[in-house]
Amino acid sequence: MNLLESTVNNITELNRAQMRQAQKRLDSLTKPPGSLGKLEEIAVQLAGISGELLPQVDNKYHVVMAGDHGVVEEGVSAFPQQVTTQMVYNFLNGGAAVNVLAEQAGAEVAIVDIGVAQEIEGENLLNRKVKYGTDNLAVGPAMTREEAISSLEVGIEVVEDLIKQGANLIGTGEMGIGNTTSSSAILATSTDLSLEQIVGYGTGIDEAGLEKKKKVIAQALEVNQPQVNDGLDILAKVGGLEIGGMAGVMLGAAAHRVPVIIDGLISGAAALIAHKIEPQVSNYLLPSHQSVEPGHIKIYEALDLEPLLDLEMRLGEGTGAVLSMNLVEAAANIINGMATFSEAGITVED
Amino acid sequence: MNLLESTVNNITELNRAQMRQAQKRLDSLTKPPGSLGKLEEIAVQLAGISGELLPQVDNKYHVVMAGDHGVVEEGVSAFPQQVTTQMVYNFLNGGAAVNVLAEQAGAEVAIVDIGVAQEIEGENLLNRKVKYGTDNLAVGPAMTREEAISSLEVGIEVVEDLIKQGANLIGTGEMGIGNTTSSSAILATSTDLSLEQIVGYGTGIDEAGLEKKKKVIAQALEVNQPQVNDGLDILAKVGGLEIGGMAGVMLGAAAHRVPVIIDGLISGAAALIAHKIEPQVSNYLLPSHQSVEPGHIKIYEALDLEPLLDLEMRLGEGTGAVLSMNLVEAAANIINGMATFSEAGITVED
Repeated sequence: MNLLESTVNNITELNRAQMRQAQKRLDSLTKPPGSLGKLEEIAVQLAGISGELLPQVDNKYHVVMAGDHGVVEEGVSAFPQQVTTQMVYNFLNGGAAVNVLAEQAGAEVAIVDIGVAQEIEGENLLNRKVKYGTDNLAVGPAMTREEAISSLEVGIEVVEDLIKQGANLIGTGEMGIGNTTSSSAILATSTDLSLEQIVGYGTGIDEAGLEKKKKVIAQALEVNQPQVNDGLDILAKVGGLEIGGMAGVMLGAAAHRVPVIIDGLISGAAALIAHKIEPQVSNYLLPSHQSVEPGHIKIYEALDLEPLLDLEMRLGEGTGAVLSMNLVEAAANIINGMATFSEAGITVED
Repeated sequence: MNLLESTVNNITELNRAQMRQAQKRLDSLTKPPGSLGKLEEIAVQLAGISGELLPQVDNKYHVVMAGDHGVVEEGVSAFPQQVTTQMVYNFLNGGAAVNVLAEQAGAEVAIVDIGVAQEIEGENLLNRKVKYGTDNLAVGPAMTREEAISSLEVGIEVVEDLIKQGANLIGTGEMGIGNTTSSSAILATSTDLSLEQIVGYGTGIDEAGLEKKKKVIAQALEVNQPQVNDGLDILAKVGGLEIGGMAGVMLGAAAHRVPVIIDGLISGAAALIAHKIEPQVSNYLLPSHQSVEPGHIKIYEALDLEPLLDLEMRLGEGTGAVLSMNLVEAAANIINGMATFSEAGITVED
């Protein structure tokens, strides 16, 4: 049995008994029952994931997977391909939005080159390149099925290393010029939605660029015929290496009962792939923000999740996931730190 | 000229020149222009408030105003009046939700007894009682115009003390059994909305309680005839001491060019009062969460603000304001900490 199969086999149900205990404790705390809304739901989910009544999410890591996309030769992005490499160096130098927000959240950032088209070197870079960018999905599969499996296994290995270092909350993010095209293709395959409902402006193309992007995706689906019930097939034919890497992080975290936060459209597309491979993974996923990319909210709906933040962001890198760590930590702190009615001597009924 | 008048006179326009510089700097940072959405808008607003291109919001204080409401004798709340006192002791002992969330946010909490019906003593309590709870607004004015001015001036004095201690970001919250009734009456007076659109379940009354609450508010408006364009009149006739206190905090913060975060329905009602007294105060207000109280989103609309968080919360205490401090700080960190395209050597055009 390979790493992917054994990981998927280790993803099991949430601990329902502990979730009931957590709800009972939340109802005993000094607030009207349910009045902390989604924070209470997250606290219950964290108890179910970790199996602990008082879950800890204080050891936060954020994984940024970087990979390139052959489809950029169709002219689907507002930025040239070398920006992927340049932004990875920006991450390594601490100058990007995700660095600033992760520092504020108290999260360590792990940068993974899983498929950048150029060579990159850096002391803190995890060099796990599967391939020098995907092939152009508009004319054939983005990668082979074996390469897709490798990308998933890189994600599993990376997250397992972080969990060995004590990680108890994981964020997911990415960098890859062209990857909203790939993500929209994954979403179109995974749902009944039309390209009109899904495809957006990415990092900032114009109207003509948007029409071209839709045509390229339609062509990719026609040429490749990805199989709707086969997550690996979808990933290989119209996915990306960083998308496979993030899906692997989600599967690996779930197998080790560690919560993992999804970010925007691309991280969401990775969640769809992970969910196709093992539906129970979604119990271990936490939502973050709602991106302005029109397809993003459809991913939340498909995974039965609701976003916590609507900040009209569309940056990627996992910036929304890192911003949401504060809310996940708030949920854990509430159940850990608040007084009960009886401890505080408060009158519940008149 | 009294303190309220001099404070109102000191509330002026935002620094538009610095806002333009801030937008220019944001557009030079390593991200697609505008891609951090509302965080960028907040960063620009912080520059306009503080007059600094690189605003600091690292010295956070949260003010909880506590006061009682004579209208509870009409049976409008799910909890008895003594819970106000009991919860103040819970705040002083650090056991409430707002304590846990403020600690996580790195914010100091200032607890103010501005009008609790019982005597309260505590080392860290600011005893600024204007009155032992308001009178029953269903049968006459909640307080005199002089008492309303006093409540506003307590808020101004409290926030001025915090600003002298270095506060550069203020949260507002409250405790007061019965105060959603008062807040809904303020909202009904300040807008064209019907009580059906405004009145909610508060901390958890049932359907019969909801109908009674609407009747009590309708009676209060009929008996008192609060004047729509006179914030002080509305505050005195159907308001609350803690609501006046929070409105004072908002006016005082604005006069000293310090941003102040509004919370749920009650803090929002205070913002409406402050806005009636001096419309420019809203430039200094930052939104936080959207409460499940149906009137709350109407307050945001009236103030031309949009909530940042929708967590289905309805607790009060300023829990939403404290949770949002992380987002305000993120906005400041972005403009302070990110690299520019030229610093990072990134290709902007192909």
